[in-house]
Amino acid sequence: MSFQKLDDLNRRLEAFSHALSILGVDEAVSMATGGGEARAESMSALAGMQHRQASAPEIAEWIDAAEREDLDDEQKAAVREFKRQYVNLTCLPAEFVEKQMRTRLRSEQLWRDLRAKNDWASFEPALDGVIQMVREEAAMRADVLKLDPYDALLEQYDPGTRAATIAPVFDDLKTFLVDFVPRALAVQEEKRAKRPLKALSGSYPIERQRELGLTLMQAVGFDLTHGSLAVSHHPFCGGVPTDVRITTRYKTTEFLSSLMGVLHETGHALYEQNLPKQWAHWPLGKARGMAVHESQSLFVEKQLGCNPAFWTWALPIVEQHLGEDWAIDDILPHVHHVERGLIRVDADEVTYPLHIILRFEMEQELVAGRLQTRDIPQAWDARMKDTLGLSTIDSPGDGPMQDVHWPAGLFGYFPSYSLGAMMAAQQWATIAETMPDIDADLAEGRFERVNDWRRDNIWSQGSRWSTPELMQRATGSPLDATHFKRHLEARYG
Amino acid sequence: MSFQKLDDLNRRLEAFSHALSILGVDEAVSMATGGGEARAESMSALAGMQHRQASAPEIAEWIDAAEREDLDDEQKAAVREFKRQYVNLTCLPAEFVEKQMRTRLRSEQLWRDLRAKNDWASFEPALDGVIQMVREEAAMRADVLKLDPYDALLEQYDPGTRAATIAPVFDDLKTFLVDFVPRALAVQEEKRAKRPLKALSGSYPIERQRELGLTLMQAVGFDLTHGSLAVSHHPFCGGVPTDVRITTRYKTTEFLSSLMGVLHETGHALYEQNLPKQWAHWPLGKARGMAVHESQSLFVEKQLGCNPAFWTWALPIVEQHLGEDWAIDDILPHVHHVERGLIRVDADEVTYPLHIILRFEMEQELVAGRLQTRDIPQAWDARMKDTLGLSTIDSPGDGPMQDVHWPAGLFGYFPSYSLGAMMAAQQWATIAETMPDIDADLAEGRFERVNDWRRDNIWSQGSRWSTPELMQRATGSPLDATHFKRHLEARYG
Repeated sequence: MSFQKLDDLNRRLEAFSHALSILGVDEAVSMATGGGEARAESMSALAGMQHRQASAPEIAEWIDAAEREDLDDEQKAAVREFKRQYVNLTCLPAEFVEKQMRTRLRSEQLWRDLRAKNDWASFEPALDGVIQMVREEAAMRADVLKLDPYDALLEQYDPGTRAATIAPVFDDLKTFLVDFVPRALAVQEEKRAKRPLKALSGSYPIERQRELGLTLMQAVGFDLTHGSLAVSHHPFCGGVPTDVRITTRYKTTEFLSSLMGVLHETGHALYEQNLPKQWAHWPLGKARGMAVHESQSLFVEKQLGCNPAFWTWALPIVEQHLGEDWAIDDILPHVHHVERGLIRVDADEVTYPLHIILRFEMEQELVAGRLQTRDIPQAWDARMKDTLGLSTIDSPGDGPMQDVHWPAGLFGYFPSYSLGAMMAAQQWATIAETMPDIDADLAEGRFERVNDWRRDNIWSQGSRWSTPELMQRATGSPLDATHFKRHLEARYG
Repeated sequence: MSFQKLDDLNRRLEAFSHALSILGVDEAVSMATGGGEARAESMSALAGMQHRQASAPEIAEWIDAAEREDLDDEQKAAVREFKRQYVNLTCLPAEFVEKQMRTRLRSEQLWRDLRAKNDWASFEPALDGVIQMVREEAAMRADVLKLDPYDALLEQYDPGTRAATIAPVFDDLKTFLVDFVPRALAVQEEKRAKRPLKALSGSYPIERQRELGLTLMQAVGFDLTHGSLAVSHHPFCGGVPTDVRITTRYKTTEFLSSLMGVLHETGHALYEQNLPKQWAHWPLGKARGMAVHESQSLFVEKQLGCNPAFWTWALPIVEQHLGEDWAIDDILPHVHHVERGLIRVDADEVTYPLHIILRFEMEQELVAGRLQTRDIPQAWDARMKDTLGLSTIDSPGDGPMQDVHWPAGLFGYFPSYSLGAMMAAQQWATIAETMPDIDADLAEGRFERVNDWRRDNIWSQGSRWSTPELMQRATGSPLDATHFKRHLEARYG
């Protein structure tokens, strides 16, 4: 039976994925500095073997045959995702993939060096090489997937998401934010004139911050029998659904950035820990995509973790662990701090989407060939001035060179961040509509009802639906910016 | 060229070995309790793929062809080890290996449960199944390797080691120890009558013990850019030569057991870190075997770490980290404590070999069929009474059920422990002979000359020589018990 062959194949592929995930976590958390070369060799050899097994020509026949077999609904959905994975994996020729890998690696290495030097001129040719290949890649994927080129890239990260659908949503949000950011800043200034910002600086031993993080993680639903918290230079959520590894980094003079980071990664982890176990080794059993994943992390970090009701419950716990004594009006202004800045990863939830929309718009032009690599700095600067009123023309390292995504050839990825933020707001709005007293749950540290809703509507669904279908089914309507705008109005307006 | 095919194959196999090593370390150190099932599936799938690739029939042809190619000496040595690995891997039929795996797993699981219950009767049939299969395995290996059956088992752990060669060495040592143990105990009693044993109990925070361990590890030669120290329930040395992971466990009331354990694992680690890098992905570049590996760990733990000169240097460092103030005559009686006991892993270096010789003698009889499984408790008890004057007839959990080796089917492994102890003494004697002032190095924390000798004679040799050849080349004579006996006489006599 061909379905059985696909099932067996995916068990073998899962063994590689498991190993690669854990090796990746180990590299970031535990590996000695001198261990990198041998680790890279092992991982690339394993990834190569996995890729060869996953893209073997006979799999096409197994999928064809399985589609004609008498399967139940779950198995049919599984075959659909087997096929999606196989088609996306095999639509580029092997020589192209290898050349692209080399081009990307060289560009990434250059970027690491040149970003700090603000040296756009030396970096431009390498990035141009990457962009040329992204255009080729998009064209080839578009041809196989019968999609527009940029959509064929988006499809890698968010199955079913189309530029034509999300562009109006982003336009709507952009128009709103260009007006709202100055308004939010004015409101913030007014508040601080009345009650000056209280510094939260102090001495916060790492072990106490760690205990605090573990306490809140568990309260929010993280299962410590299937995951753990460690330290790494760049925080992430990795590992496997049965053993989800989240990381943070600590400063002893400040606790809030680590704590909010832990909540963010806990959001990712809850999705992974609650994926459908019976499909664990199938593509069908994986998380749906980057945007939905980001909606889960931002749900915990922003919808829950920045909610004043949440802090009613959390503040005494924080104080108990850190030995401090604050009023809620001391802490919330820090949690809700808004500031215009050049750097995406440092941005708050109000200004963040403007960073993303800029990249989304420019990516589409770059892939379509309407914008050339050499014109990126000017185009970036113009958009930054238009939306946030900031210039980066003299500091490309804080402008188009700030992120690894483009140097690494990841085009179509950026939208996920703000799609996730909007989805999280829309999910919260749906919950709040059906459970009008839900804030009282947060104020008492009860997350069962919120998590039950998310388990039923998001987590347990795996990759059963496309991203837009999943949102439609969960919230009753397609993604739009309304809920996110209302959320910002309520919190910052 | 066939040599190149073997080289390529071993690069692929190395990728699996690397992954399996790190996954093993991660499981012991970092894995969440609920992650075990998926980890076991991934590791057994990877091990299965590795085994299939390593035992493919065409490899026999590559080896044959490579033996006729024009190769340099290193390559010839590499082919010899490729062949040794291949032959040892393929001399058992796949069905036998699978049946044996199931038999061993069932016996191990039963053992875990029944050991604590002292229930030999329920365990005996499972162990008997394992022993029956060990006899079959030994016969099949013997047939292919043209060795005696028990030697064919020894060959897995110590290439070149033969029962006929080591039996007289063990006999010599046993005769000595039966007389020496009571003498050493009497000497210890006399000393304590003059100077009562000072308790070292106190409060030793884990972080301080860890810093102390790291300090001594590095001083002895451990390279922290290619390895690290972590915590696990059972201390071990794992990982890969470019990233050696050693572990320990801490008690806050006692520091010496952890510290000596760290020195022991550091000995293993130095061997791994200093293996020949140019052969890293070949069997030729691996450590020679279990006995030589144990000689390296015991060299650091016993020859260096229990040497009074070592403590002249180490004691101030220990005191500085732990905030204590001891005389060297307070600490040495703890380091050199001798005690008759039932449990091998708790034994000191004087009594330990008697535990091993008992197992070595019984193993040979069991494999040859001269001893039956049902008679093990009586045979064990008789030997324990003869050598250590202790009885285990009423406590099989502290007798023949105390170790995992036999339940897991590992016959031929035990001798390595005491072969290693004797080798370490013989290596130290060779060093002391050519560098008569070497104690002065230890007293000043200088390990360069000792490590240079070990690098030249042991570490850099990888698997170039059989175990007996390696010892002969390094020390100028075959292994004998003289040096170890002299060492015990000098330290405990």
